[in-house]
Amino acid sequence: MARLRIGVFDSGVGGLTVVRQLLRLGAEIVYLADTARVPYGNRAPQTVRRYAFECVSYLVRQGVDLLVVACNTVSAVALDAVREAAGELPVAEVVTPAVAAAVEQTQTGHIGVIGTRATIGSGVYERLLKERGARRVSSQACPLFVPLVEEGWYEHPVTELVAREYLQPLHGVDTLILGCTHYPLLLPVLARVLPETRFVDSGVALVHWLQRHGWVAADGARASTLELLLTDAPTPALEQMLQALRLGSVAVQQVRIAEHVLPVGA
Amino acid sequence: MARLRIGVFDSGVGGLTVVRQLLRLGAEIVYLADTARVPYGNRAPQTVRRYAFECVSYLVRQGVDLLVVACNTVSAVALDAVREAAGELPVAEVVTPAVAAAVEQTQTGHIGVIGTRATIGSGVYERLLKERGARRVSSQACPLFVPLVEEGWYEHPVTELVAREYLQPLHGVDTLILGCTHYPLLLPVLARVLPETRFVDSGVALVHWLQRHGWVAADGARASTLELLLTDAPTPALEQMLQALRLGSVAVQQVRIAEHVLPVGA
Repeated sequence: MARLRIGVFDSGVGGLTVVRQLLRLGAEIVYLADTARVPYGNRAPQTVRRYAFECVSYLVRQGVDLLVVACNTVSAVALDAVREAAGELPVAEVVTPAVAAAVEQTQTGHIGVIGTRATIGSGVYERLLKERGARRVSSQACPLFVPLVEEGWYEHPVTELVAREYLQPLHGVDTLILGCTHYPLLLPVLARVLPETRFVDSGVALVHWLQRHGWVAADGARASTLELLLTDAPTPALEQMLQALRLGSVAVQQVRIAEHVLPVGA
Repeated sequence: MARLRIGVFDSGVGGLTVVRQLLRLGAEIVYLADTARVPYGNRAPQTVRRYAFECVSYLVRQGVDLLVVACNTVSAVALDAVREAAGELPVAEVVTPAVAAAVEQTQTGHIGVIGTRATIGSGVYERLLKERGARRVSSQACPLFVPLVEEGWYEHPVTELVAREYLQPLHGVDTLILGCTHYPLLLPVLARVLPETRFVDSGVALVHWLQRHGWVAADGARASTLELLLTDAPTPALEQMLQALRLGSVAVQQVRIAEHVLPVGA
């Protein structure tokens, strides 16, 4: 049987935390990061939708069997544009699996979610968590976390100080969704700030969800492969992320994404 | 005499610190911020050059008499692409005036410069400062300053802690160039961290330079006007910046920049 070819799309290199989990599946992974326009998290939803449409259109042409949107911002505000570009291809995103995992884990029903301004502003997590029975949802945008991760300050005192400020309103949640692919790298700091809380990592939740719903089956006998497509030249943030995730040396290629006009109504 | 119409280009809204200075000239100012692709400071030079070419091509078509590149990153790595797009139009940028001001102000000849990774990585400030007689140049990239300003944390303890870390190698410089348009908003913190240092604000240096070289003459009898063109929808960072700079209410318009292929050799 041919190996499953999975196209993973993220605004930047943060989605490699999701790839780290997908690598357990023995699949062929093609990862597209829109590093020439990252970050998406502070942009207007319509702009994120246009970028997502252009990137997914490109990724679909790489001949993948399954499309994974690793970016929480895109999953939260631009899924319609992704589906428009993906056509018949199955699309998995990171919000639904994280919501399912959080609802399963919570003891008290008080769930928290942190993410970019665009993700939190969309209210998608809050709506889905309540639909799935969460008693109370507390959410918080954390715009400085991404630049701190990209600076490599995973364990820096500054990061802890920022985390204490952002997470202050979240004391009392028993489960916290890390609603941005960069955040799993901050887990040690987050766990110090909220020692009583369980954390949901989007990547872990996604792979669990894909397996449970029969979209993929782990093929333990084969090693996964990883191909990295970037819209900008490689930068220090990429090298740092590959090292931090122990992904070793990876084939990297810079690609040019054509500009599309998003179809009306998409 | 018709009022001078000045086109100002910046990657984001930080260049409004330069506009604040230009408003003293009694001119018509059209400001284009590429907010759909900001920040430029961590991107590869070739990508910055492409973006600059596209934006300046657009701005030129707004019928301006003079083009000001307010962005240090563009001034440092993409001036050739800007000139290519500007054609016959006179182009002023922020590096040369800041270098001139620093060399004039320094007592000891030891000058510092802070900026984005791309600006510092280009080595342009260092080269020009040495050509102009600086005895010693110390430079430091400060990638977290822009997100901190965009978060509105001008006077936050986190900002001071970050500044202490970044500026540690710069003790001993007697003059420091703020080589990024966002940085003047951090002046109170920077002055606390380096109390013996004089600071060069790009916007102040630019207006001084334009006047001294006869490019513009202040028309004190007329009030300036300001028109803001953005490539993304307005975001909270813009509102915050307008307030912090006391620019009041400004006409804002979202525009679509066409993608160009940069001519070979540009």
